[in-house]
Amino acid sequence: MIVLFTDYGHTGPYVGQLHAVLRREAPLIPVIDLMHDVPAFNARCGAYLLASLASEFPEETVFLSVVDPGVGGDRRGAIVKVDGRWFVGPDNGLLNMVARRGVSVEWWDITYQPARLSASFHGRDIFAPVAAILANGDGVPGVAVDPRGRIHSDWPEDLGQVIYVDGFGNLVTGLRAAGLGQTGVAIAGRVLPRATTFSDAPVREAFWYENSIGLVEIAVNQGRADVSLDARIGASVVPS
Amino acid sequence: MIVLFTDYGHTGPYVGQLHAVLRREAPLIPVIDLMHDVPAFNARCGAYLLASLASEFPEETVFLSVVDPGVGGDRRGAIVKVDGRWFVGPDNGLLNMVARRGVSVEWWDITYQPARLSASFHGRDIFAPVAAILANGDGVPGVAVDPRGRIHSDWPEDLGQVIYVDGFGNLVTGLRAAGLGQTGVAIAGRVLPRATTFSDAPVREAFWYENSIGLVEIAVNQGRADVSLDARIGASVVPS
Amino acid sequence: MIVLFTDYGHTGPYVGQLHAVLRREAPLIPVIDLMHDVPAFNARCGAYLLASLASEFPEETVFLSVVDPGVGGDRRGAIVKVDGRWFVGPDNGLLNMVARRGVSVEWWDITYQPARLSASFHGRDIFAPVAAILANGDGVPGVAVDPRGRIHSDWPEDLGQVIYVDGFGNLVTGLRAAGLGQTGVAIAGRVLPRATTFSDAPVREAFWYENSIGLVEIAVNQGRADVSLDARIGASVVPS
Repeated sequence: MIVLFTDYGHTGPYVGQLHAVLRREAPLIPVIDLMHDVPAFNARCGAYLLASLASEFPEETVFLSVVDPGVGGDRRGAIVKVDGRWFVGPDNGLLNMVARRGVSVEWWDITYQPARLSASFHGRDIFAPVAAILANGDGVPGVAVDPRGRIHSDWPEDLGQVIYVDGFGNLVTGLRAAGLGQTGVAIAGRVLPRATTFSDAPVREAFWYENSIGLVEIAVNQGRADVSLDARIGASVVPS
Repeated sequence: MIVLFTDYGHTGPYVGQLHAVLRREAPLIPVIDLMHDVPAFNARCGAYLLASLASEFPEETVFLSVVDPGVGGDRRGAIVKVDGRWFVGPDNGLLNMVARRGVSVEWWDITYQPARLSASFHGRDIFAPVAAILANGDGVPGVAVDPRGRIHSDWPEDLGQVIYVDGFGNLVTGLRAAGLGQTGVAIAGRVLPRATTFSDAPVREAFWYENSIGLVEIAVNQGRADVSLDARIGASVVPS
Repeated sequence: MIVLFTDYGHTGPYVGQLHAVLRREAPLIPVIDLMHDVPAFNARCGAYLLASLASEFPEETVFLSVVDPGVGGDRRGAIVKVDGRWFVGPDNGLLNMVARRGVSVEWWDITYQPARLSASFHGRDIFAPVAAILANGDGVPGVAVDPRGRIHSDWPEDLGQVIYVDGFGNLVTGLRAAGLGQTGVAIAGRVLPRATTFSDAPVREAFWYENSIGLVEIAVNQGRADVSLDARIGASVVPS
């Protein structure tokens, strides 16, 4: 299975063009659109989202992961195998957290060279064909490198920030809920209590809960947390 | 075939996560995204939309239908078979109209229990696996109950309200057009005439027509009816 | 392969209903959503977009192309075969540029008549079934006509206008970049230089580059060109 994880948005032909390449190069492999609204150009938010989402998928899944503000510049392309799953994308931090949290980690610099290379759409021209090669089991089009030379460790294990705002105004954070117990979380000068789910919380009250991928998420029962708390991507969130 | 009908929106990973479960549990069954912008949390609007959309699909289609403001609370989960088609979702009224309009109706309370159950994402954890079981022909993971104990009859046969506003500003109502003939419809203090289609109506004039699923829809030729009439979900629409 | 190219937007059931018809009528043919946000009702912008996007696809691809402000009126439906690829849609100019730029061009007026025909959704009722027939190799449900009687030549070879604004605010034009060299382009009273890609241009500066489908595209490094230049669909863009 190939899973798409990008910041391309749902407008324009870009996602469709990825699908066209995958259909041509790997016609027998199913493709799933996991997320195309990773915060734009934000590889860091993407890294924490991807690390939490990936564990739901079976081994041998290939994640075509593209958040690539440096496209056309000199950033490398990466193939990473973590605990049986493959990840393909720009080497700009996007694959950092999934690699750091893995037990078994292998890393390759992409050496694949397409017949045609646009300056702005390496998702179509490099990363999608590489994902197809991996999904087809046709080898690894890269040169193996020591992951320790590629993973950077200056990002925190958990990111105390809002990393995604969903369509309902819920604030997803880069903090894993496991181990937090009944600790509150501080955001925007307030400390919010934990609830199990929406229907447990008083109407219009902000709270946090463990979301369906194990992250601390801040919500308001029958309201929008982003509006109530005037919070957006990057807002600080601290257990307290 | 499994058909998705939700209020999840097109942002975030939620729809992709449903697809991932269905691919894992029912790899041979095609899946179609029918609608993911049912008015949010609004099981009633969803019920009238679903009842009109479902009839286009063949027997044995499984509708994975999720509009679920009470997720994590004590509402039941339902499997309903109506005239050969299957419907899976929360028992909060969403499946009410399709069941009321059916000739042959069977109802089961869901008894399926997943290995992992999140508090907020029963679409992924319960309804999608149940849809996969039904589509695979692996039995019905529920306990049969008398539909008369589940269907409630306090909703009108046709709902004289706007139940959906589409991207062009057209106002879909819960009124079926069959039998209305040349009757006008009243909305926002005005009575609108019937037209066959857009090009029949004067430019900038509001009118109603029978839309492609048999419902009364209010539109403005080369304009937006939602803006012209200042109308939104829930606005009253009465044949007159 | 069937490729969808419409102005239906991503809201509502419309795209899902197309998929349902294609699944029923051509269950073995893969379907790709290329673009559903062609500028609404704008067959001219669509024509230039389609002509540039189509060349990425293999022969025998069937493009289900619907931008159809005249639905329900007396415009014809068209099947066009251009250099091995099929195009199905309303005969309102949408297929004009792909036909004009082709070497081998055949044209048929659609004669297919569905059992049920709605007044407003010929995409579902006519064009999708016709696309399925073509993709299945079941003949051509139309009457052959001389393409010269259908192609109109009053549109320019290249359109010096903004024809699409993408989600990042980039301005796609109807000008092909091939042959322009280092020529600048004038828009909104300014002349913009050419850059190879985003990372080549100074931050916040507007520039043009050859986009991934060969068109002149205007962008701002780390900014939105639509906002910086106050430009939208139809704005004049002239090499200079």
